[in-house]
Amino acid sequence: MKKLAVITSGGDAPGMNAALFGVVKAAARHDIEVFGCVNGYIGIIKEEFMLLTEAELFKVIDVGGTILGTQRFPEFAEKEIQTKAVDILKKHEIDGLAVIGGDGSYHGARALSQLGFPVAAIPGTIDNDIALTDITLGFHTAVENAVDAIDKVKTSAASHKHIFGIEVMGRQASDIAIWAGLATAADGIIGTNNDWNLEKVLKGIKMSAGKSQIYILAEGAISADQFKAEIESHSEYKVHPLVLGHIQRGGKPSVTDRIMGIKFGEQSVNTLLEGRTGVCLAVQNNQIVELELDKVLHASNNKPFLPFVSQNI
Amino acid sequence: MKKLAVITSGGDAPGMNAALFGVVKAAARHDIEVFGCVNGYIGIIKEEFMLLTEAELFKVIDVGGTILGTQRFPEFAEKEIQTKAVDILKKHEIDGLAVIGGDGSYHGARALSQLGFPVAAIPGTIDNDIALTDITLGFHTAVENAVDAIDKVKTSAASHKHIFGIEVMGRQASDIAIWAGLATAADGIIGTNNDWNLEKVLKGIKMSAGKSQIYILAEGAISADQFKAEIESHSEYKVHPLVLGHIQRGGKPSVTDRIMGIKFGEQSVNTLLEGRTGVCLAVQNNQIVELELDKVLHASNNKPFLPFVSQNI
Amino acid sequence: MKKLAVITSGGDAPGMNAALFGVVKAAARHDIEVFGCVNGYIGIIKEEFMLLTEAELFKVIDVGGTILGTQRFPEFAEKEIQTKAVDILKKHEIDGLAVIGGDGSYHGARALSQLGFPVAAIPGTIDNDIALTDITLGFHTAVENAVDAIDKVKTSAASHKHIFGIEVMGRQASDIAIWAGLATAADGIIGTNNDWNLEKVLKGIKMSAGKSQIYILAEGAISADQFKAEIESHSEYKVHPLVLGHIQRGGKPSVTDRIMGIKFGEQSVNTLLEGRTGVCLAVQNNQIVELELDKVLHASNNKPFLPFVSQNI
Amino acid sequence: MKKLAVITSGGDAPGMNAALFGVVKAAARHDIEVFGCVNGYIGIIKEEFMLLTEAELFKVIDVGGTILGTQRFPEFAEKEIQTKAVDILKKHEIDGLAVIGGDGSYHGARALSQLGFPVAAIPGTIDNDIALTDITLGFHTAVENAVDAIDKVKTSAASHKHIFGIEVMGRQASDIAIWAGLATAADGIIGTNNDWNLEKVLKGIKMSAGKSQIYILAEGAISADQFKAEIESHSEYKVHPLVLGHIQRGGKPSVTDRIMGIKFGEQSVNTLLEGRTGVCLAVQNNQIVELELDKVLHASNNKPFLPFVSQNI
Repeated sequence: MKKLAVITSGGDAPGMNAALFGVVKAAARHDIEVFGCVNGYIGIIKEEFMLLTEAELFKVIDVGGTILGTQRFPEFAEKEIQTKAVDILKKHEIDGLAVIGGDGSYHGARALSQLGFPVAAIPGTIDNDIALTDITLGFHTAVENAVDAIDKVKTSAASHKHIFGIEVMGRQASDIAIWAGLATAADGIIGTNNDWNLEKVLKGIKMSAGKSQIYILAEGAISADQFKAEIESHSEYKVHPLVLGHIQRGGKPSVTDRIMGIKFGEQSVNTLLEGRTGVCLAVQNNQIVELELDKVLHASNNKPFLPFVSQNI
Repeated sequence: MKKLAVITSGGDAPGMNAALFGVVKAAARHDIEVFGCVNGYIGIIKEEFMLLTEAELFKVIDVGGTILGTQRFPEFAEKEIQTKAVDILKKHEIDGLAVIGGDGSYHGARALSQLGFPVAAIPGTIDNDIALTDITLGFHTAVENAVDAIDKVKTSAASHKHIFGIEVMGRQASDIAIWAGLATAADGIIGTNNDWNLEKVLKGIKMSAGKSQIYILAEGAISADQFKAEIESHSEYKVHPLVLGHIQRGGKPSVTDRIMGIKFGEQSVNTLLEGRTGVCLAVQNNQIVELELDKVLHASNNKPFLPFVSQNI
Repeated sequence: MKKLAVITSGGDAPGMNAALFGVVKAAARHDIEVFGCVNGYIGIIKEEFMLLTEAELFKVIDVGGTILGTQRFPEFAEKEIQTKAVDILKKHEIDGLAVIGGDGSYHGARALSQLGFPVAAIPGTIDNDIALTDITLGFHTAVENAVDAIDKVKTSAASHKHIFGIEVMGRQASDIAIWAGLATAADGIIGTNNDWNLEKVLKGIKMSAGKSQIYILAEGAISADQFKAEIESHSEYKVHPLVLGHIQRGGKPSVTDRIMGIKFGEQSVNTLLEGRTGVCLAVQNNQIVELELDKVLHASNNKPFLPFVSQNI
Repeated sequence: MKKLAVITSGGDAPGMNAALFGVVKAAARHDIEVFGCVNGYIGIIKEEFMLLTEAELFKVIDVGGTILGTQRFPEFAEKEIQTKAVDILKKHEIDGLAVIGGDGSYHGARALSQLGFPVAAIPGTIDNDIALTDITLGFHTAVENAVDAIDKVKTSAASHKHIFGIEVMGRQASDIAIWAGLATAADGIIGTNNDWNLEKVLKGIKMSAGKSQIYILAEGAISADQFKAEIESHSEYKVHPLVLGHIQRGGKPSVTDRIMGIKFGEQSVNTLLEGRTGVCLAVQNNQIVELELDKVLHASNNKPFLPFVSQNI
């Protein structure tokens, strides 16, 4: 094995650069060169490769986003494009590909693997919505970012006794909402549609006797504007809506995401070196494990990963 | 002089607690007790006073918001209510009042002073929209908060080559937008209506050749949603709008706001002790000066305070 | 059950206030009052109790240290003093005690329990040196603090090509050193005496060809001054020593420590309510479990908790 | 003017990268290429030049240190070496040089200017010890870093009622100590030898009745170890010494340092373009002014820049 390629794909997630560092570091131990394909799968097709060095990546371990870039490329669902990608990778004498991304990226990774090209995937998404892994790369930092923002709102809200509905990311997953709500002791967490109960919220506000109230809203459950409209049309209360948006994606990766990223990156190289393909890495009980991409893509991600639940007590 | 009162009024601003600490610290040197009136002017009318201690306030020097609370109280514009406030303060043997707040709070302060009650005001607002002071308490931290958020967006935007319109606070003032835009080397700053030039923005985006673009929008000039609508209805570009909102108000006060707050607080006590009233403090050329409230309220605040301009070179 | 008491004991750890919040919140659900004993075990003997309220503790969830205070009290090893403590607790009609602290505090907790007083302990120490729990309260934040400091040194070191030996806390445990070293991709981690190999370090520095070098030193393995002396007396290299010290203990608790603290606090109340005593809480595979204090105190804590190890791959 | 060179020299300071960005941005407006000389003056002699681009520097506006590197080079005091530097710069058709650094770097800049080579200098040092400028690039961030560290120590100290002597940087200048001490409401600030008064400190500790005490020590006045030794040898108090060291140099530049850096960089290009040489930039009353290097090097920097002093009140 002489050359590997790596892409970051889908939404950017803090820790992706750390994962790239891990890939390059492990590859260097075996004198393997690593090429980054610019902007995800499209970079393969466009043959935009850049040689990655440990020294350069060392500088961005603590930087959010991905220095490789990432871009939507729906055409990669077409078999013809996939075959072209494999041809290009082979033409450049690339021996394997590490894919860092979310659900959509996993489909592309499986396709390449089914065409015979060695692929190992790493779960990189802030949403924590990939099946069979406790946690995805970037999620922990996204929660830290959300909590940091909520902390800032908290002192202002307390000064004015305001009611806030704060919408956090997570697509259909409620993990960011739950973690951020727990860490800030929010007055309510609306993680799914089922959690939404207007009467209960109105009662909670009434019981709070004029103190500030902070509700954390998963974007897949209810938007901040909807929350405001619901409360204000059924009561005299005034609601301040706030959409945290992209500030959740950036910033310095947390310790957890940095270490996870580096270890994921290193293991992806080992996996390819040892000849396994069509797999993705995952975290189960704080350990990195390897799973079949096919299995993960068929599993449902039907429940959030809850932190520090009391079990069997 | 045995007893002073202090209120925080209007929008909360980081550094207000530091100012309260400064008031109490300076008062303690002269064995003066300080009472905080809860939630601003309304706390006087409701006779909700709390004795403030140096030890308690020391703990919150680095905490945003105001432990005294603040609340809208438009009725305080009525002469009858103002007279009642003076009567209550006298009944409690309060010898003077420090008011920490913005423009609206200054009107109340002037009114009490005109009724013969000793008042000294401190400019506390994140908007930096008070006349004749270079800078107001809380503004510097608000800019730090905005810049911190924009930094986070920056790595994500760069990864995806997104175009962002980021709306910052400041009411009619453009100072937060200008400072935050300069500190992040934003692609454009729309500080006032006059800065808005659709053609120029579209040209800038075109010239950027597909790189990420970040525009900082003063809320008084153009909203993030308007910005998005303008761009998207006149081009093929897709815009991500982001409203930073209340995260700008909170968080740890910056070094600048902490020192300024403490010094403002201390000086307000000295001012009252030395028998001056109807005045407000201000910063001019990094020094604290004292101005007539009446003069400040009649002056126009027609230009932003620009940082580090090259002059006479 | 009407009244519970709680203490924080031993070295302070970020998240202790969150744990206090958790105790009070869970107790409130059962109409139980919670009294904090000031400064740890000594507060029981001195009968310094303060009623804790959810509203007050809510404000300090995101604040380091412990609002209850903590103090060394070696006399608590004496049976007579322990008996006195039980008598005092009973006199005040306290029905159970939650102890938040490290190894030393656990001995006190076991003693009270053996005297028949209901006790539940929570592992609160930044050192992560308690047996049978993956992680202790405060450890994650301590690592974040260390990494934040190392990040700051990193840009300066790179600018000058300096060699740094950075000493981190952890008493005899190497966990902080290992995690912080991994997260910053340090050039070397000296976690235990056995890791210390002068020749290897000198070779590493030589191989780095004049680039900056950062070594993370566990305080129980080698001090920064020793590291400097060893290198400088055996080579021409100049070393910058840095002892991070108490900045590791403070600051905002990380999301992990906040949630863990709240959940630990809540579970300790449930444990006491359900009549179990002489136990401590622990985290195993991200879940909170309950263990016999006696078992934990007899177990050895002989290995660090390693993050994201690849297992069975 | 077609080509400019720029160096960062002396100790690194947060904001140096922002200044490099400013240089390149202003140069680009006039189609001037900018070359960075690696590691300061030595890079000129070694002819290690790198072409700087706006896109590359944009990414590091918010990163501490200097991407150009900096290195001691005492030989640059020799006239022969200086002449060689001018020859090399001319050989490469460089039309002017911007020097970002402290006092030592200013001497080199003056020498080149006296040899007829156009030079403009920018005050870049965390110590704030350059004459005739209110503030130097990097100082504000160094204070933020120190305050952030002291905040972390503060909660731990309060929990244990510890006495801390915290040594901050600043060489012979006391500015960091004074600003950091004010912003944290420290119990004492030892900025110069004259501030040191053992009896006063012991009295202060005694009066504090067992509460935590934090003293901020300028490195030029008294070291943390000396402070500890003095207190402990003359009393029963136990002191915790802490040397903040290089964590003060790094980290994200504050808003103040970012804007100042960019504006300094831009103005240095304008200065050279307009044909002035042998000058340095400075900040006076928040504006950037231009001064003769010779004048600045002969002036004494005998007093700290005090923030928000009350004047003529």
